[in-house]
Amino acid sequence: MQSVNILSELYRDFLRKEVIGKSPLGLYEPVNYMMGLGGKRIRPLLVLMAAHLYNDNIGDKLYLAHSMEVFHNFTLVHDDIMDEAPLRRNSETVHTKYNLASAILSGDVMMLKAYEFLLKYNDTSWCAEALSYFNRIGIMICEGQQWDMDFEKEEEVSYVDYSRMIKYKTAVLLGACMKLGAMSAGAGIEDQEFLEKFAVNLGMAFQIQDDILDSFGEGHVVGKKIGGDIARGKKTFLYVCALEHLGNESVNFKMDYLSSSLSKEEKIGRVYGYFQKAGVLERAKRWQYKYFAEAMHNLDEVGVDETRKRELRTFASSLFERKM
Amino acid sequence: MQSVNILSELYRDFLRKEVIGKSPLGLYEPVNYMMGLGGKRIRPLLVLMAAHLYNDNIGDKLYLAHSMEVFHNFTLVHDDIMDEAPLRRNSETVHTKYNLASAILSGDVMMLKAYEFLLKYNDTSWCAEALSYFNRIGIMICEGQQWDMDFEKEEEVSYVDYSRMIKYKTAVLLGACMKLGAMSAGAGIEDQEFLEKFAVNLGMAFQIQDDILDSFGEGHVVGKKIGGDIARGKKTFLYVCALEHLGNESVNFKMDYLSSSLSKEEKIGRVYGYFQKAGVLERAKRWQYKYFAEAMHNLDEVGVDETRKRELRTFASSLFERKM
Repeated sequence: MQSVNILSELYRDFLRKEVIGKSPLGLYEPVNYMMGLGGKRIRPLLVLMAAHLYNDNIGDKLYLAHSMEVFHNFTLVHDDIMDEAPLRRNSETVHTKYNLASAILSGDVMMLKAYEFLLKYNDTSWCAEALSYFNRIGIMICEGQQWDMDFEKEEEVSYVDYSRMIKYKTAVLLGACMKLGAMSAGAGIEDQEFLEKFAVNLGMAFQIQDDILDSFGEGHVVGKKIGGDIARGKKTFLYVCALEHLGNESVNFKMDYLSSSLSKEEKIGRVYGYFQKAGVLERAKRWQYKYFAEAMHNLDEVGVDETRKRELRTFASSLFERKM
Repeated sequence: MQSVNILSELYRDFLRKEVIGKSPLGLYEPVNYMMGLGGKRIRPLLVLMAAHLYNDNIGDKLYLAHSMEVFHNFTLVHDDIMDEAPLRRNSETVHTKYNLASAILSGDVMMLKAYEFLLKYNDTSWCAEALSYFNRIGIMICEGQQWDMDFEKEEEVSYVDYSRMIKYKTAVLLGACMKLGAMSAGAGIEDQEFLEKFAVNLGMAFQIQDDILDSFGEGHVVGKKIGGDIARGKKTFLYVCALEHLGNESVNFKMDYLSSSLSKEEKIGRVYGYFQKAGVLERAKRWQYKYFAEAMHNLDEVGVDETRKRELRTFASSLFERKM
């Protein structure tokens, strides 16, 4: 099996050469700017790794991989407007660098371009199957984003609702990458579904880790200040977890967490106190491990040689190597 | 052949029963609000009329018709944000009634839903053919919108560039409605293409008429005040036409047309003077008739009985019956 690095380099090479569009410049310059901002390129890598379980030759899967990356970036461009975010990957967001209209329209055309790349596999049965499936995923992603925005306005968010939100907003797209990668390489439906579940569970574990690191990670490793989520009163997995386990104290916890009058230090200090009382760090880690273990079980069920799966296991583990 | 009114009522009936989504409410309420705002429903009607040329039973084409209407409405929701328009069909635009984030995300999900409806024809060959085609149309529509925004910032817009802009921004979608309608009913590729061209030419003629009516129509018939385009300095077909034919005077014309210091009456008065000098009304009418005649020629080429085409001709003519 080719190493993850080779697959990753293969896509990055493709990306450097592939220009999504040129004219009108006002439409495509923001697209190419966004696509060039970098990022981990995990989604295309998942596509290629899934296809590679079944076939050594993955050169013809690059457009499929690209499709997922472009779709992901479309969601980021529009999400950044909705979140009024000035920065993305340490650079200006599209609506900040250009303007609102450019960001909306560039995002729209990115979504359409993602479909164009997905349709490059103009095998007729692929089209009906893959397109209908992916279309449902796209709709789920919009629903997830809406729930996320709704939660920002609500004090009470249940664990079930929160989990569904992160599943829809981020995990299902990872699942789609694996499923489509496997589908394109001729995998059977059972394998496709186990690989999809594997990536969804991995995504859930990763999202929880993200929340843990923001409050409990080492600042210099994560690349941002610790406690940012708490300072902003963001509804995270930790917040939801604390709410469920603080009993009577949850009222005071909510008040402090969502307070805009407390100083940042005071707020973070108090919230850490509640987090400790509710055993939030341990609980969150347990959930993270649960999802991760579930992902590994899913991978066990996939009907290819363990030797071919090994790299995928290593890659999955590497996602969780960031220091606590 | 069923009358246009029956086909139109068939779709309106379908639309009343079809709810695009329910939960999350924050996502789908704006969608259903927008779809309920009314409008002429020309696009679904074109789909049904094209299919009806080949087949009396068009009940199974309603989702295809709906797909085009939903896609069209997605473009309106996003265009209204970009144009900062407070009103659409005498009601609040989505971003005014709800908010910016809702309008962006609802628009996104409408685009995806349009694809979902398009994919309901899960015939495998249909999917590859229709989807790839429609996807290109979607990209052209975005490019047209970008050109339109670009032109607002430019003084010089050539006739060629302007025509391409209106073709991409509005006419190609009308063409797609006819082509897909015919395709879904089993029409041959030649017929599909003639019907597509028919609707594109019709769209061009209609767009020019729109510009003519804004400056030369009777206010009470058009339902808005005359001269709105001139007052706002909008780049219309008439503006482009005047520019091309005023020779040395075009410099002064541009200055007056784009002036923000002239009073509205003074501006309109001066511009009418230029329009008269350049023979703009006659020229524009000539273009409108040229496109309309071309559309009729396209229809001549379609390989079905003239009796079946008659209603389409009548409908096309009826679009131009508004008083001058």
